[in-house]
Amino acid sequence: MTFEEKLQQYADVVVRIGLNIQKDQELVINAPIETADFVHVVSEAAYRAGAKDVILNWDDEICRKQRFTYASEKTVSEIPQPLVDMKMFYLSRGAAFLSIHAENPTLMADIDPQKLGAAAGAKGKAFKEFSDKLGANENVWCVISVPTAAWAQQIFPNKDVEQAKEALWNVIFDTTRIGEGDPMEKWHAHMNDLTSRSAFLNEKQFVKLHYTNSIGTDLEVTLPEHHIWAGALEKCLNGGTVFVPNMPTEEVFTAPNCDAVNGVVKSALPLIYNGKRIDKFSLTFKNGRVVDFSAEEGYDVLAAMFENDERARYLGEVALVPYHSPISQSGILFYNTLFDENAACHLAFGSSYPTCMQGGTDMNDEQLLAHHMNVAITHEDFMVGTPDLNIVGIDAEGNETKIFENGDWAF
Amino acid sequence: MTFEEKLQQYADVVVRIGLNIQKDQELVINAPIETADFVHVVSEAAYRAGAKDVILNWDDEICRKQRFTYASEKTVSEIPQPLVDMKMFYLSRGAAFLSIHAENPTLMADIDPQKLGAAAGAKGKAFKEFSDKLGANENVWCVISVPTAAWAQQIFPNKDVEQAKEALWNVIFDTTRIGEGDPMEKWHAHMNDLTSRSAFLNEKQFVKLHYTNSIGTDLEVTLPEHHIWAGALEKCLNGGTVFVPNMPTEEVFTAPNCDAVNGVVKSALPLIYNGKRIDKFSLTFKNGRVVDFSAEEGYDVLAAMFENDERARYLGEVALVPYHSPISQSGILFYNTLFDENAACHLAFGSSYPTCMQGGTDMNDEQLLAHHMNVAITHEDFMVGTPDLNIVGIDAEGNETKIFENGDWAF
Repeated sequence: MTFEEKLQQYADVVVRIGLNIQKDQELVINAPIETADFVHVVSEAAYRAGAKDVILNWDDEICRKQRFTYASEKTVSEIPQPLVDMKMFYLSRGAAFLSIHAENPTLMADIDPQKLGAAAGAKGKAFKEFSDKLGANENVWCVISVPTAAWAQQIFPNKDVEQAKEALWNVIFDTTRIGEGDPMEKWHAHMNDLTSRSAFLNEKQFVKLHYTNSIGTDLEVTLPEHHIWAGALEKCLNGGTVFVPNMPTEEVFTAPNCDAVNGVVKSALPLIYNGKRIDKFSLTFKNGRVVDFSAEEGYDVLAAMFENDERARYLGEVALVPYHSPISQSGILFYNTLFDENAACHLAFGSSYPTCMQGGTDMNDEQLLAHHMNVAITHEDFMVGTPDLNIVGIDAEGNETKIFENGDWAF
Repeated sequence: MTFEEKLQQYADVVVRIGLNIQKDQELVINAPIETADFVHVVSEAAYRAGAKDVILNWDDEICRKQRFTYASEKTVSEIPQPLVDMKMFYLSRGAAFLSIHAENPTLMADIDPQKLGAAAGAKGKAFKEFSDKLGANENVWCVISVPTAAWAQQIFPNKDVEQAKEALWNVIFDTTRIGEGDPMEKWHAHMNDLTSRSAFLNEKQFVKLHYTNSIGTDLEVTLPEHHIWAGALEKCLNGGTVFVPNMPTEEVFTAPNCDAVNGVVKSALPLIYNGKRIDKFSLTFKNGRVVDFSAEEGYDVLAAMFENDERARYLGEVALVPYHSPISQSGILFYNTLFDENAACHLAFGSSYPTCMQGGTDMNDEQLLAHHMNVAITHEDFMVGTPDLNIVGIDAEGNETKIFENGDWAF
């Protein structure tokens, strides 16, 4: 298969499985300008699948970096209302949203974390209604990645730009099941596997998960009543379209009881937040809240995140990913949540997905919090899955079931 | 001088002479994604000159072409209100506006002219308040060009892409006075020359211009009372900043009495409108209105423009450019109004600049029309200057003064 054929296959999988574009639907694409060649392919695939209109929101990370270098904290924290209105305009018309995530992981390394945190906080507040509605699946959405020079060279520092991009393309194709054979069929089989695992967990309705490993993790995560485990497939509230919000995806996930997490958890992989690296960190939880934390690298970045959003100290997601997933097997640290979150079990700081509780999408923020579903500006995954991670599920009668053993599914 | 040095000089000239950026001013840049390398230089130059913030509106012509290919006339004619609000938001805050014009001239060659016309008409209506205010110089604005592959190869079809872009860069540098020496000094001298010519014409206050040449032009253009000739320099209504709205610029221009243009005018160069070519056209005016027209190429494109905007049948600009201007001397047809309008005397279909009449910027549309200043959605320049063009100015007493003789200034 030629590269162009794989590109076409990838675009078709994104449009037909990821977004499941419907006739006469609008599609909004958020993309770095450097990924324009792929955007042209996916945009044309969307029109061919019946999209009425494709709207582009281009981003350029060099201009963004300049802005954070020269403009004041006040300026970068101001979000013009028409920008918000524009997103709400297409949301209210039932548009699908595709985001291409391909950030240079060290882009913001020399920018003041306080400025980055303030801007992220302001953006989170301004777009909260939009994010809440999209997070609740009022509209279809999908996040994918495409190589850019800076990102590819970060992953493959010993290759030249073109070789690095080619190598990253190959990993993206492999992990999104692109190549010889019928990718649609492969995706259906994969979705069935994840769906059956989440069905098992939903039936069990564990009240608590107990995480342990040899690097010092000993964490009890209570699950709220009526929690829902989801995996790969989501259903759009308006119209019921079934879609896949992340490509690749290997995870089965739910929401924790954000007020009943206790113990210590150690990071398994570095977290890149606002383009800055936080590594070898440890978090101590008491009644859901991070009451103590340390980090060998990026302590101030973590501190700024908590400073700008108190609710980032509480958890919003519990995700199970086998340590021997295809992405983990690649042995690559991607510095990109979309990939790294599919390499290991993870938790998320900040907001929960209302779709992870029965009736959650009908609840307002107060009701969600009353049901122990975290509400926050932030949603940031961090990896806790090691090759020796064990997770035990405890049900209402106190029975224990092995869920993960030595980093992999135990059932 | 290296290419990078010239690029830096060009960016500085655009920021300091073109936009004359003020401390803490915002700058909005409209640019094709393909010109990102230059945008990074000009954006940084703006921050260094004191800009508070630089906001990017990226355009991608391939996505735009896809949209015109697949989306319906109704869809391409719908302008979301937040897009308009966004422009008005920065206008109201005193932002400067930089547009990089670098369109592939034949991009839309196979798109239905009716669809293009309808979209252009809808866009013109939606952004009318914005365009009116910017045209009246409520804010500072500047239009420049940067080579793109498609545009450069259209001009230099026998060169490969990189050679064509290099050749086009060289022409752009030459015509914008970039290179050895002090470009700021060269620009000040050039602006003084154009300013002294417009001062002469303003003092004369001709009531009529009579155009003749050997290809059949015989046109009388009446000038309205209190018309103002302008050239190169404009003054911002808010704050009085002096700026140069077009780079390059060789023209001295005013508004005609849009109800008193009579006779026949022949095109001297092809007009590219909505990406389509209109060539060897002839227009017959009676009391200001195009009452008859023909074209050897693109008749239907011209017809669609008139169909979508009745006021495009009336003139809005009279511009004088010596046939031996540096741009004309390059012997190149640029397929880009910014350059081609500076190669020859031209007229414009559609709206006039309110700055071209005393008190014009305080007039509403009705008042402008009552003063014979055209109000339209369209503003489209077309070239009429041939090497043998003569223009005679006739004053209130009937005295004749040669303004142009054999295509060049006669005074």
